[in-house]
Amino acid sequence: MSKTATAHEICELVNGSLEGDADFELTGINKIEEAGPGEISFLADQRYERFAASTQASCLLVDKKFKAASTASFALIRVNEPYRAFLTVARFFASGQQLPAGFRHPSAVIDAAADLADSVYVGAGVLIGANCSIAEDVILHPGAILYADVHIGAGSIIHGGVVCCEGTRIGQRCIINPGAVLGAEGFGFYEHKDGSFEKVPQTGRVVVGDDVEIGANTTIDRATMGATVIKNGVKIDNLVQVGHNASIGEHTGIVSQTGISGSTTVGRRNRIGGQVGMVGHISTADDVYIEAKSGIAKSIKESGKYFGAPAVAHSDHVKQIVALHQLPAILKEFRALQKTVHQLQRQAAENPSGTDGSAG
Amino acid sequence: MSKTATAHEICELVNGSLEGDADFELTGINKIEEAGPGEISFLADQRYERFAASTQASCLLVDKKFKAASTASFALIRVNEPYRAFLTVARFFASGQQLPAGFRHPSAVIDAAADLADSVYVGAGVLIGANCSIAEDVILHPGAILYADVHIGAGSIIHGGVVCCEGTRIGQRCIINPGAVLGAEGFGFYEHKDGSFEKVPQTGRVVVGDDVEIGANTTIDRATMGATVIKNGVKIDNLVQVGHNASIGEHTGIVSQTGISGSTTVGRRNRIGGQVGMVGHISTADDVYIEAKSGIAKSIKESGKYFGAPAVAHSDHVKQIVALHQLPAILKEFRALQKTVHQLQRQAAENPSGTDGSAG
Amino acid sequence: MSKTATAHEICELVNGSLEGDADFELTGINKIEEAGPGEISFLADQRYERFAASTQASCLLVDKKFKAASTASFALIRVNEPYRAFLTVARFFASGQQLPAGFRHPSAVIDAAADLADSVYVGAGVLIGANCSIAEDVILHPGAILYADVHIGAGSIIHGGVVCCEGTRIGQRCIINPGAVLGAEGFGFYEHKDGSFEKVPQTGRVVVGDDVEIGANTTIDRATMGATVIKNGVKIDNLVQVGHNASIGEHTGIVSQTGISGSTTVGRRNRIGGQVGMVGHISTADDVYIEAKSGIAKSIKESGKYFGAPAVAHSDHVKQIVALHQLPAILKEFRALQKTVHQLQRQAAENPSGTDGSAG
Repeated sequence: MSKTATAHEICELVNGSLEGDADFELTGINKIEEAGPGEISFLADQRYERFAASTQASCLLVDKKFKAASTASFALIRVNEPYRAFLTVARFFASGQQLPAGFRHPSAVIDAAADLADSVYVGAGVLIGANCSIAEDVILHPGAILYADVHIGAGSIIHGGVVCCEGTRIGQRCIINPGAVLGAEGFGFYEHKDGSFEKVPQTGRVVVGDDVEIGANTTIDRATMGATVIKNGVKIDNLVQVGHNASIGEHTGIVSQTGISGSTTVGRRNRIGGQVGMVGHISTADDVYIEAKSGIAKSIKESGKYFGAPAVAHSDHVKQIVALHQLPAILKEFRALQKTVHQLQRQAAENPSGTDGSAG
Repeated sequence: MSKTATAHEICELVNGSLEGDADFELTGINKIEEAGPGEISFLADQRYERFAASTQASCLLVDKKFKAASTASFALIRVNEPYRAFLTVARFFASGQQLPAGFRHPSAVIDAAADLADSVYVGAGVLIGANCSIAEDVILHPGAILYADVHIGAGSIIHGGVVCCEGTRIGQRCIINPGAVLGAEGFGFYEHKDGSFEKVPQTGRVVVGDDVEIGANTTIDRATMGATVIKNGVKIDNLVQVGHNASIGEHTGIVSQTGISGSTTVGRRNRIGGQVGMVGHISTADDVYIEAKSGIAKSIKESGKYFGAPAVAHSDHVKQIVALHQLPAILKEFRALQKTVHQLQRQAAENPSGTDGSAG
Repeated sequence: MSKTATAHEICELVNGSLEGDADFELTGINKIEEAGPGEISFLADQRYERFAASTQASCLLVDKKFKAASTASFALIRVNEPYRAFLTVARFFASGQQLPAGFRHPSAVIDAAADLADSVYVGAGVLIGANCSIAEDVILHPGAILYADVHIGAGSIIHGGVVCCEGTRIGQRCIINPGAVLGAEGFGFYEHKDGSFEKVPQTGRVVVGDDVEIGANTTIDRATMGATVIKNGVKIDNLVQVGHNASIGEHTGIVSQTGISGSTTVGRRNRIGGQVGMVGHISTADDVYIEAKSGIAKSIKESGKYFGAPAVAHSDHVKQIVALHQLPAILKEFRALQKTVHQLQRQAAENPSGTDGSAG
């Protein structure tokens, strides 16, 4: 099911100018250091120019100023932004792996009360519960599990091993990666005086906007009441935890293994590094950047860069780290200084009032 | 399958006193700021009283002292503890979503040598291995996977994508959330001198007590020999790791993304925050509280609050954090003080024996 | 399906010398403190010798010097290395739980264009996509999910809930634990000026070598282009994240909940503790040891032990921790010292030039 295109066709696709054989058939895209004959690659970073001499690629996307060695055997497509052109070409080749629209694998279990658009692809072993509503062009990969009353918007892709619990809402053009769990029970308990727990019923749902990507084995809990909300354009990496009633603002990105506790509201366009932890019931402003491994213990009210556990302004934590690295040596100097001062003190004490003594 | 009740019926349920229309039909429970007509809500926290003026809820659970505005259109149910009453009402409405007892989806695979009580619910695509034993009222959600010889106690709920490996034992009234893995191979290797590993066979099992909740995509490894044990009343959040041969004491709660290494024994009623790490082969006392992101490198023998990596008494770590935050400024003061002292030293050196010189 | 052996047979297996009844039938292996009649145990660590007096085991693997109490009722098998002997015996008993070679559960979905060796075991509900190639003696546990074009080498074991996306390559004798995801979309986005993201197509794959073990719910992303590579003999624990285009060197071990970011290259025989984070596009040397919870922000060029976030030489971070623990007390001493110095300064100022004053 792979796609091919001539150098000329690719050149048109990226609005570039071609130097080389227009009819050459290109079969895929690859990194410059790994590309082989028939493949196209790109140069968007000077650090990779050293690979131009030895690449086996048949064609390169380069900027206007690139100078090829006279011995170079590859064709060139000159563009304004080679990286953007690469994205376009990569998307072209990736689109060759289309699954057949409207396919329903006979092993899939589709509840009679589920409503699927004609073009939905249903892979082997997919389970679709009652009252689910699946819009056009959705792809349900083998082994995806939808409980009852799950709605999925047009063009979204749900991977194998994903579990969407009752009531989950997913928007359009989302990708839910394998093993992600949407709508599990939130972690809410009433603590008795004897230290035992009583469950707080979790009757809410998860609501995911459009153009959201959720990573493999990431977990997003249903709300206690109401909804846990992932807004449009959010990108969440693998193994991330989002607690009940949390809300993640538009176009925010969250790197792997970060945890957002319950009822916390993350602002728009936040960039949250890996292994960050945020306590519950706080919020962040828009345009907040949080360094990996930070711990956020209270609300962040100003956009900016934060770091540390508990987090402070990024540059302040960097100073703390520098200071901590110096600290063992400084402590030795401090002990030495203490001795010096005590010696000075003794000397001063031996001459209790300095000049007075000499006045005799 | 949703449930309704009159205000009078709800009032009886929570042993309260009603002010308003006894026959009004209530259809669900929601947060005060999100509740709509027909819904009941509650006020258990002064911070939410500001929503009372604008709530669309038809009825509120409030304490004896609550004063409604004269314009308020909602009914009131006065109770001693509004939060406890909310739990009761939430449980009532949640119970409306019962799955039919005794249901066996035809796509489920139930080994001929498995033993299921009549009332067990078996969802689509559930896989039940040989010699499994499933007690009354257990719910197996779509896509749950039980290897051979798994025993599940009465009233437990196993969600989709859960994998229980051979020999797993689960008690009564447990909830195992989607994607949790019980009984995977423990991480045990014998290291050869050349740095390669030889597998230590993992032949034990996982044993879970009664009233345990295990989070989505959490992993609890089988013991090398014997059992990894999760005792009664333990609540474990999502994406938590419990290593082989670990033991978690009664009524302990563990927040998301925490890792308990192999052969570690956690005491009773511990409260372990998120992203905590505990090394292997240690233990904690009963009633230990560990702050999020802490690292526990040795046994904790006294109940109390701990914090830091490596963890110390909670208040000590807070002092360390405060001190660290001051450190960059202190280092500047320290350099200044050094200069001052050296100046004093030079001055003293210029007058080597103070008054002696003046004694001439 | 469990196995038994006489004490004599076990003794031959481990090349030991037997003291006791050669014909006694042994039924399994267990820890010395938990072993019951019929079971064999071992003593490889002096700390466990105290259990020898009370053990119910019928046989013990011990070293040449072990002295049993005169009242001991167990047989002894003396060996050079009791722990190695234990491994051998544990493997013997574990091998009793063989699944029948060549079994194909009727509920499994095997694409007509997949190629399975005769001896492959296919459990219930397994899904095998087109163009998969599964070699001899592979075990696919119930609920394993293979997308199209997945290749698995001889003798590997794929557990339930595992998802191998298109193109995944797995070597020989690997164990992929339940819920692990190989080949999900890498986390790669182009950021627009308005803060929204554009997906970078992820068209590469995951390539796993021989003798690799991958933990439950661990995620290994496909490469953007080319391959994410896990080399021979690597052991990865549960809930670990390996980003797109990362490479893990031979015989490296990675403990639970660690995250290796995209395009990072980990060397051979690294030992990486739990909850470690490594940024992307860096590398580590061979034989690097990284303490749990460390953060690796730049390449490590020398083998050795590292610790901290950001990590430094292990012993340096230990010194930093010791210093930090002292810091709150030191700050008090520092303030006291400042006072003393200022007092000395005042005294010196009152006698601006020491003996000069007294010269009058």
